[in-house]
Amino acid sequence: MTLRAGAIVQSLGGELFGDPDRHITRLAPLESAGSTELSFLANARLAHLLDTTQAGCVIVSPVLAESARQRGDCIVVDDPHLYFARLTQMWRRLHQGAARPRIHPSAVVEEGAFVDPSASIGALSFVGRGARIGAETVVKERVTIGEDCVLGARCLVQSGAVIGGDGFGFAGHEGTWVKIEQLGAVRIGDDVEIGANTCIDRGALDDTVIDDGVKLDNLIQIGHNTHVGKHTAMAGCVGVAGSARIGAYCTVGGAGMIAGHLSIADHVHVSAGSLVSRSILKPGHYTGFFPIDENGEWEKNAATLRQLHRLRERIKHLERQLADSEDK
Amino acid sequence: MTLRAGAIVQSLGGELFGDPDRHITRLAPLESAGSTELSFLANARLAHLLDTTQAGCVIVSPVLAESARQRGDCIVVDDPHLYFARLTQMWRRLHQGAARPRIHPSAVVEEGAFVDPSASIGALSFVGRGARIGAETVVKERVTIGEDCVLGARCLVQSGAVIGGDGFGFAGHEGTWVKIEQLGAVRIGDDVEIGANTCIDRGALDDTVIDDGVKLDNLIQIGHNTHVGKHTAMAGCVGVAGSARIGAYCTVGGAGMIAGHLSIADHVHVSAGSLVSRSILKPGHYTGFFPIDENGEWEKNAATLRQLHRLRERIKHLERQLADSEDK
Amino acid sequence: MTLRAGAIVQSLGGELFGDPDRHITRLAPLESAGSTELSFLANARLAHLLDTTQAGCVIVSPVLAESARQRGDCIVVDDPHLYFARLTQMWRRLHQGAARPRIHPSAVVEEGAFVDPSASIGALSFVGRGARIGAETVVKERVTIGEDCVLGARCLVQSGAVIGGDGFGFAGHEGTWVKIEQLGAVRIGDDVEIGANTCIDRGALDDTVIDDGVKLDNLIQIGHNTHVGKHTAMAGCVGVAGSARIGAYCTVGGAGMIAGHLSIADHVHVSAGSLVSRSILKPGHYTGFFPIDENGEWEKNAATLRQLHRLRERIKHLERQLADSEDK
Repeated sequence: MTLRAGAIVQSLGGELFGDPDRHITRLAPLESAGSTELSFLANARLAHLLDTTQAGCVIVSPVLAESARQRGDCIVVDDPHLYFARLTQMWRRLHQGAARPRIHPSAVVEEGAFVDPSASIGALSFVGRGARIGAETVVKERVTIGEDCVLGARCLVQSGAVIGGDGFGFAGHEGTWVKIEQLGAVRIGDDVEIGANTCIDRGALDDTVIDDGVKLDNLIQIGHNTHVGKHTAMAGCVGVAGSARIGAYCTVGGAGMIAGHLSIADHVHVSAGSLVSRSILKPGHYTGFFPIDENGEWEKNAATLRQLHRLRERIKHLERQLADSEDK
Repeated sequence: MTLRAGAIVQSLGGELFGDPDRHITRLAPLESAGSTELSFLANARLAHLLDTTQAGCVIVSPVLAESARQRGDCIVVDDPHLYFARLTQMWRRLHQGAARPRIHPSAVVEEGAFVDPSASIGALSFVGRGARIGAETVVKERVTIGEDCVLGARCLVQSGAVIGGDGFGFAGHEGTWVKIEQLGAVRIGDDVEIGANTCIDRGALDDTVIDDGVKLDNLIQIGHNTHVGKHTAMAGCVGVAGSARIGAYCTVGGAGMIAGHLSIADHVHVSAGSLVSRSILKPGHYTGFFPIDENGEWEKNAATLRQLHRLRERIKHLERQLADSEDK
Repeated sequence: MTLRAGAIVQSLGGELFGDPDRHITRLAPLESAGSTELSFLANARLAHLLDTTQAGCVIVSPVLAESARQRGDCIVVDDPHLYFARLTQMWRRLHQGAARPRIHPSAVVEEGAFVDPSASIGALSFVGRGARIGAETVVKERVTIGEDCVLGARCLVQSGAVIGGDGFGFAGHEGTWVKIEQLGAVRIGDDVEIGANTCIDRGALDDTVIDDGVKLDNLIQIGHNTHVGKHTAMAGCVGVAGSARIGAYCTVGGAGMIAGHLSIADHVHVSAGSLVSRSILKPGHYTGFFPIDENGEWEKNAATLRQLHRLRERIKHLERQLADSEDK
């Protein structure tokens, strides 16, 4: 199946310089695109790739239009990355095979669950009683949507995700743990994406809440009672402990960890591999990981790090000594 | 469905001050509880919440009884947190909908597996041959219990958990890896809870063992041959490498990591985000993570950290110089 | 079921000293092996275990043959660890129960998927259209193999793994995220093992590629467009962000994290708990984690670490002062 260049700009806008009848057979990265393939250049620092790409047509921003036109066909748009995102969506719609059944016959949807007629539930998925799944939401294969959990419209839940497992709550009693039944549920807004094997626990009393537009990558843990603000995105392997309150428009890099019972303001960006152990009340970019090094170097520095406090004392002592000797 | 305040103390004990016929419609946090809802206060430092809560009734300890009684109805008990845990269990029992089938028809239980008549196996779960599942144990939806693995009584296994995947064992051979078949199984005691998408690998030769009362949160990895002592609790995203021997009554914070082939004493508490790279033979609280900071600050400190050993040498040198100059 | 010692060496080679008719009932670790059990000693530093083991027969290297023969039966081979791996495979073949069906009736294999007649698909697994599964590959229970994903020959996929979930790709647009449809797939070579609940995302345009002989443990996240070179092994909880290019013959310790868009040379070994935040172009062993300590010690050192850059300035200042005073 192919797409005419002209049909693309007709659908998505942008100015085409070149042959509207050029057949596009695939979307491809600049480095590997061939003469019937369409690519995009979003980062001006990669402009040199225009010199070597074999792409049949390239999506570029106005500032690169001139050089792009010199090498061949191009589509000029204000935001090539965004345009490209929309193009992948158009491509997907056109190239989708036969539709799958709305609720796959192997899925288990309990009585008392509500699935919007425009939503779909993949093979071998489970939807518990009292759960509600909104319009055009896609639940892929082998997903669990627990009792009473709610997903809004246009959500996408990847395979293996578990929405509504029990939160991790116990009362200590003479060295043993007494279960606190988790009586809340999970409430998820519209346009939320949830990655493969990601877990979102139900609240202890109130619900765990994921606001509109949140994007969660794979293998993420969201503890009970947590609130994730709208349009916040988290990369793979992130962990959020219970009762955290995370703002809107935040990002958390891969394997970032957020301790429990703390608050994170809107527009906070946490680097990969960083543990947030206290509330962050000011927007900004926060980091905390040990920089990697050759193992021998690391060993020496790590050993010294374990005496760092004492080193500081030695510096203080030197400063005093020197001040004394200068006084004399 | 509601519960009378009087019925609660009749069942669970405690002294009720107030109307035994008050109908409780929900358990709720102090901050959001309304006039027909029951809340609890376990932490004396939060006593000020008593002044503002709208809760119809509050569970408190004797030391707060006086102020609680002044604001309205209360139940006075020695350990409000524990009492509350038991109350959630009572609530769950009363509000549970129709019972699910003992073994859901969509579950696959192989011939030669034994499931106690009082245990239940959720939808789309798999129980391999030779596996044994004890009395009153609840295996939720989409769980794997591998061949020959054993779960004791009153366990709870959340959705997506995999008990008895192969341990990660290979012999190196000319740069490639030759599989060591994992011939052991997993042996789990009584009253163990296993979180969503958590994995416990089968042993290479002997079994991987999880003792009574252990609580594992979501997305935890337990490597082969590991032994986890009784009543130890681990938060989400923890990893335990193979052949670790972890004591009883330990806790591991979220994303804590425990290297292989080491021993951890009883009553050891590992902070979130900390890597245990050597045995810990003394009870206590252990931590090791890079404190988070604004990214610019972190960059400067991390760069210096990579020269920390040399900094120490410079301090030593300064100390020698100063000692020399004082000698003169 | 038992195995004669003579039958073992007949099959796998090695020199048997002792009774070829000795019946072996189990493979066991040296520490717990009994008189009808077979064990192995691969690490010369553990040679003292020969003095105490009750094993009926021990596999040893030539250098330990003498002491092993003095204590009883032994099999002498060049590489006991490798020999033992092959023995576990022989044991598994002999002790396997009745074969499972090639494609379990509860599995969902979509039309247009190809499963080699010698491959097997476990209970409750899903194989999407266009997927291809090679000869003798074993897909265990509750696995997802997404649309168009390819597995080579002799692969083993543990329960809960998700191959071909969407990569995590969005274009930012006025604070919200616009989905980039992931049009690539996952291409996996021969002899690859994929752990329980591990996720490998499909590429955005090109495929995510896992080369021959790669071994991935449980709960690993492999981002889209990543290339993992042959015979590389990763321990549990590792995360690899998108578009990383990882060499051959590498190892990554548990919970190691690899940032996106970077290159790692062949023969690079990353320690557990270490975040690779920049490309590594030289083979070697790399580490970066905060050493664990008693919490009180850690607190003092971590607090000082947040001023490390200023400490360096103070050292510089001291050096200058001292140089000045010596000049005088």
